[in-house]
Amino acid sequence: MYCVIMAGGKGTRFWPRSRAAVPKQLLNVWGSKTMLQESVERISRLVPPERIIVVVGREHAEKTCQQLPLLLPENVLVEPVGRNTAPCICLAALQIARKNPHAVMAVLAADHFIADAQALCRCLEAAATIAQQHDCLVTIGVAPDRPETGYGYIQYANTIGQHNGIPVFQVRKFHEKPNREQAKAFLEQGNFLWNSGMFVWKASTILEEVRTFLPDIYNKLLPVQAYWGMPNAQKVLEEAYAAIEGISIDYGVMEKSTRVVTLKGDFGWNDVGSWSAVYDISPKDDQGNVIQGTAVTIDAENNLIYSPEKLTAVIGLNDIIVVETADALLVCRKDQAQDVKKVVELLEKQGKKNYL
Amino acid sequence: MYCVIMAGGKGTRFWPRSRAAVPKQLLNVWGSKTMLQESVERISRLVPPERIIVVVGREHAEKTCQQLPLLLPENVLVEPVGRNTAPCICLAALQIARKNPHAVMAVLAADHFIADAQALCRCLEAAATIAQQHDCLVTIGVAPDRPETGYGYIQYANTIGQHNGIPVFQVRKFHEKPNREQAKAFLEQGNFLWNSGMFVWKASTILEEVRTFLPDIYNKLLPVQAYWGMPNAQKVLEEAYAAIEGISIDYGVMEKSTRVVTLKGDFGWNDVGSWSAVYDISPKDDQGNVIQGTAVTIDAENNLIYSPEKLTAVIGLNDIIVVETADALLVCRKDQAQDVKKVVELLEKQGKKNYL
Repeated sequence: MYCVIMAGGKGTRFWPRSRAAVPKQLLNVWGSKTMLQESVERISRLVPPERIIVVVGREHAEKTCQQLPLLLPENVLVEPVGRNTAPCICLAALQIARKNPHAVMAVLAADHFIADAQALCRCLEAAATIAQQHDCLVTIGVAPDRPETGYGYIQYANTIGQHNGIPVFQVRKFHEKPNREQAKAFLEQGNFLWNSGMFVWKASTILEEVRTFLPDIYNKLLPVQAYWGMPNAQKVLEEAYAAIEGISIDYGVMEKSTRVVTLKGDFGWNDVGSWSAVYDISPKDDQGNVIQGTAVTIDAENNLIYSPEKLTAVIGLNDIIVVETADALLVCRKDQAQDVKKVVELLEKQGKKNYL
Repeated sequence: MYCVIMAGGKGTRFWPRSRAAVPKQLLNVWGSKTMLQESVERISRLVPPERIIVVVGREHAEKTCQQLPLLLPENVLVEPVGRNTAPCICLAALQIARKNPHAVMAVLAADHFIADAQALCRCLEAAATIAQQHDCLVTIGVAPDRPETGYGYIQYANTIGQHNGIPVFQVRKFHEKPNREQAKAFLEQGNFLWNSGMFVWKASTILEEVRTFLPDIYNKLLPVQAYWGMPNAQKVLEEAYAAIEGISIDYGVMEKSTRVVTLKGDFGWNDVGSWSAVYDISPKDDQGNVIQGTAVTIDAENNLIYSPEKLTAVIGLNDIIVVETADALLVCRKDQAQDVKKVVELLEKQGKKNYL
């Protein structure tokens, strides 16, 4: 079994901590390790370093290698440009198939929070068995505990058994991020899971499906396989990526394939899409505040305060986010944490490159 | 005419900008000049530097002299300890009386905001004429434009004429800071003014009244007059202050004297008691925000943002105060700006001296 960790995100919603040079996955958003380091550590109990592959954008390749000194240099796949998840996954599958086309690969993200790493690993093992036995595409679903509007959903059909006590279902339909009403209806119906964006399959299976549903991507990336390790490999890769149109694996393959099954995972998953999610997954003090640094709070509850360098006082405000860095300061309502990306867009427009 | 500027305040409500070493009056709370510098400049059209006296606490004497290079060193009166306004005013009156007991003195504060300096000066001139002619204590009242609960009020009785078009009244009663209901009733009744804490009188008149109503203070400070300029003057002053109990001139003299009259001033007065008052007196942008530094605001109105060193983004929050300094950060609801002093109290209790 191989693990492919996709680490291509930009994470503008973690401004001012995330920057163009240091996206979310390369950041210790809260703890001492970066999200990428935690992602690798988490699956290290399952696969040895030589079977962990990280796919990363060119501008972050160096920092990625620095953060993961145990990773083999050849296992860091550098995308010349971001083209969404389908080419990224196809590229990793081609690399793995070179060594062993029947190998199972788990595709994971570098910027997710997982409360229970053991439960995740059990889930991945079960998925690997299913993928191996049935030549299918296993997408890891997560049992929802609230009508979240920030995630896509998987509607499942009949059960096809269970592995390690984890139920496995046929997939009826993928649903995009719903509105509040729809999300509530999904939870009431019961046969809906969050789409975690984590997948398990044999390299050969996904390559077959990419060839079927995204032949252009498959055909343009296939030559890359032959040049691997050769002097002009990077040039071939660049030409291939330049000619490819970006598309997600969900939209390009998962929604079209008839070989998709899902697992009902339960390992405390959160894709940590905003500062608000950081608040949700962090331990709180008696006033419900999450504080990193020194803070004084008066009539102030349920706030996230990240200010390691300065004494911060918050008075009379609830449910806000305060994030302070060396050159910038964010003060934001928690339920508008998604709008942080608007700040980044605005700064881009204004040409304030120093702050991006 | 002399001007006495009382500059003894601590101004903890301007934390984190105001500190023990740099109280409000020594701070450029908003503009480029400090409040003390603005206070002196404002009355410079009325009196020459040699007749401007500043009374200051020992710990701030040096900074005061640095900020006011034109001031005569002998005109900086250094109080060994703070004893409220009555001893401070008595001390200044004794100093002035040494030179000319019949001189008129205006007593002003170093930390007030005055929108119209010319109107203030006209008011002080009128007050000086009245004080000279009638041997009375003139307290400068301000026509109220809202039911402010942060100020004391002066209830006036019959008019005794006008000077320079400024109405003059006998004082019926001083009122402490009212609650909301009372303040509204004051405004409806009409014969109420804000008590600005600015006074005009002859040195001889106020000394007579202090001798009458606060004989202990008068008797203990009188010897200081004889030692002025002599080697042990400071020692005599220290002993006198050590033996004096603190009391305000309002409570100790004004509320008891029968020689008090008031003027109805109108010069855009604000005692700038909190960050909220700084917001009130500052020019606003189209979203009602007052910004010093570079800021991005999204769905954010009527905020005060002081952050000269960092790019600050505020999202989804209205009516808040953000103040950032080299070592501390304040985020506060505007209508709880008075509670900033609670932060300072808390930091004192915790022994965090660096932040005081």
